[in-house]
Amino acid sequence: MTNPYGPAGPAGVPVSVPVSVSVAAGTATAGDVLSGYLHGQAAEFLRSLRLHAESGAAAEDASEAARMLRRSARRIAGVLHVYRPLTDTAWTDQLRGELVWLTGVLGREHAYAARLARLRGALHRLSGADGEPDGPGTLTVGAARAGALLDRQLSLARTRSHSAALQALGSSRFHALADAVAVLASEVPLDPAARDLLAREALPCLVEQTQRRLTDAVETLPLGVAGRPYNAEALVHGLAATPSADSPPAESRQDAPWHQARRLIRLRRYAQEVLDEHEQGEAEPSLSVRLLGAGQALDRHRDAAEAAAAAASAARTPRIAPATAYALGVLHADQRHEVESARYAFGRIWQRVAT
Amino acid sequence: MTNPYGPAGPAGVPVSVPVSVSVAAGTATAGDVLSGYLHGQAAEFLRSLRLHAESGAAAEDASEAARMLRRSARRIAGVLHVYRPLTDTAWTDQLRGELVWLTGVLGREHAYAARLARLRGALHRLSGADGEPDGPGTLTVGAARAGALLDRQLSLARTRSHSAALQALGSSRFHALADAVAVLASEVPLDPAARDLLAREALPCLVEQTQRRLTDAVETLPLGVAGRPYNAEALVHGLAATPSADSPPAESRQDAPWHQARRLIRLRRYAQEVLDEHEQGEAEPSLSVRLLGAGQALDRHRDAAEAAAAAASAARTPRIAPATAYALGVLHADQRHEVESARYAFGRIWQRVAT
Repeated sequence: MTNPYGPAGPAGVPVSVPVSVSVAAGTATAGDVLSGYLHGQAAEFLRSLRLHAESGAAAEDASEAARMLRRSARRIAGVLHVYRPLTDTAWTDQLRGELVWLTGVLGREHAYAARLARLRGALHRLSGADGEPDGPGTLTVGAARAGALLDRQLSLARTRSHSAALQALGSSRFHALADAVAVLASEVPLDPAARDLLAREALPCLVEQTQRRLTDAVETLPLGVAGRPYNAEALVHGLAATPSADSPPAESRQDAPWHQARRLIRLRRYAQEVLDEHEQGEAEPSLSVRLLGAGQALDRHRDAAEAAAAAASAARTPRIAPATAYALGVLHADQRHEVESARYAFGRIWQRVAT
Repeated sequence: MTNPYGPAGPAGVPVSVPVSVSVAAGTATAGDVLSGYLHGQAAEFLRSLRLHAESGAAAEDASEAARMLRRSARRIAGVLHVYRPLTDTAWTDQLRGELVWLTGVLGREHAYAARLARLRGALHRLSGADGEPDGPGTLTVGAARAGALLDRQLSLARTRSHSAALQALGSSRFHALADAVAVLASEVPLDPAARDLLAREALPCLVEQTQRRLTDAVETLPLGVAGRPYNAEALVHGLAATPSADSPPAESRQDAPWHQARRLIRLRRYAQEVLDEHEQGEAEPSLSVRLLGAGQALDRHRDAAEAAAAAASAARTPRIAPATAYALGVLHADQRHEVESARYAFGRIWQRVAT
C-alpha cells in the first residue's frame, strides 16, 4: 500500500513538539494558530500510540491509551473539518477520512463495555439493590437472567470489537495514517493563503459557520416538548413494531436529529479549543463550559438510546423466560426515560448557550 | 337487622331540600351551616339512589348514578369526620363507617374499568399507534397480547365488583344506611352545643385541625427529590423481588404516604366546601382550585401506581409469551414514570397551596 498522503516524514515519534503559539496573539496568522493546535494534538496522538504499544498485556493501560488515541484523532479530524479552507485540502480530506475510520474502529469496544456497565447499573438500581433493606446486591430471577443475557451478548460484541481494533492497529492502513499524523506533528500542510491571513480575522469566521450549522440543527429539535418534564415522548415507540430491514426503528428516527446535534456540538467545541488557545486570556470560559455540558447531555442521550436498543434487542432472543423478557421491558423503558431526561437537560443548557 | 342509627324517619326521598343557609353569614351558628351542607349532600345521595334504581338496564346511566352516589357519600363521610365534634358522634360515627364501606364497594367497579382504560391507552401510546405513519391502531404482537391479558384479568375483576356492588345495594345493611342518610336530609343529629357556637368561629377552627394533619402528612413526603425532574425514584423498585405475603411490595411502601396525603387533601377540600358555602363571597376561590389541582395530581399518582401494579401482576401469569411479558415490563415502567410525574406535579402545586 502506498502512502496516500503524499511525501511524509518517517513515522518516528517526536519526543516533544511545541504546543503553544509563540507569535503574539494580535499578529499571529491563521496558519500559525492552526498549526500550533494540530502539532499538539498530533504529538498527543503519537504519544498515545507509543503508550498503547508499550502497554502489552496490561488491559487497563491499553484501554486508556486507546481512549487518548481516539481523543486526539477526533480533535484532529474535527479541527481539519472546521478549518478546512485553511489547509491543503487534497491532503487533509484524506487524513480526515482515515481518522474517522480509526475512531469508529477503536470506539466500538469501549462503547460495548460502557453499555453493559450502564445496563448492569440500571438493573441493580431497578432492583432496589442499592442500599435498601430488602438486601443489597440481590437481584430477582428476571433481573439476574436479563443481566446474564446482556452480559453474554455485549461481552461477545466487545471481544469482537477488541480483535477488530487490534487488527486495525496492526494494518498497513493504520501505519499510513500514523505516518500522516507524524507529518502533522512537524508541519501542517496548509493552504498558502493561510500564512497571510490574520488568525483573529480568519478563525472566528470559520467557527461562525460551524456555529450556524449547529444552531440550525438544534432548531430542528423539538425543544418545546423536551422542555416540559415528563412529556413521555421518548417512549412513544417503546412497543412499536420491529421494522423491516430497509427502514430504521421508529426510535432511531426520533433520536437521529439529537445525535446530529451531538456531533455538531463536539465539532463546535474543538473549533473553540483552537480559538481559546489563540486568544488565551480573551477566551470565554463559560461558553466552553456550557458547550461541554450540552455535549455531555447529548452523550448521555446517545448512551441511553443505545442501551435501550440493546435491551430491546436482547428481548428478541428466542426462547427466553417471561421473567427475563419482563425485566428487559422495564429496562428498555427506564433507558428511554433517561433519553427523555437527557433531552430535557440539554434544552435547559442550550438556553444558556444560545443567549 | 335493626336500624343502627336509632330513630330515623322513613327512607322516602324528599323532592327538594333547602341547600343554602338562610341565616346571615355573620350570625349563623355552626349547626346551621353544617346542617345546610349535609342536607344538600344527603339530598344528592338520595336523588342518585333513585336515578340508580330507575336506570334499569342502561349501564351508562347506572354507572353515572353510582358515581354521584359515591360522590355525595364521600362528602358526607368526610364532613362528618372534619366537623365531628359538632355532631351527635354516637350516631354519626356509625353512619360514617357505613358510608366508607359503601364507597369502597361501589368504587371498585369503576376503578377496574378506569385502570383497564388507562393501560389500554398506554399500550396504544407506547406502540406509536396514535397518528404515526407506522399505521394507526396497529399493535405489535406483544402489546396486543398484553392488552388481551389485562383485558381478561381486569374485566373479570370488574364484573365481580359489579355483582358485589349490586348485592350491596340490595342488602339490608344498605337500606339501613339509606334510612340514616334520609334522616340527614331532614335533620342532622347535632351536638347540642353546635346550636350555640358561631359558625365563623367554630368551623375554621376544625378546618385548621384538618389542615394541620394534611401539612404534617405532606411534610413526610420526599418533596425535595420529587421536585427534581427525572429523579427516577418511582421506579427504583421496578424489578424488586415480589415480597412475602406478610410484607407489602416495596413500591406500595413507597407510595403509601402519598396515598395518605391524597386522602387528607380530599378531606380538606370537603371541609372547605362547608366553609365556602357559609362564607359565600368571602371564600378564597384560588385555595379551592389549588386543593383541587393538588388532589388531581395525587389521584393520577394513585391511578398510575395501581395500573403499574396491575401490569406487574399480569406479568406473573404462568405460561405467558416472552413478548407479552416484555410489553408488560415496558408498561409497568411507563406507569411508574407517570407516578413520578404526578409527584413532581403535586410538588409544584403544593408550593402554591402552602404559601
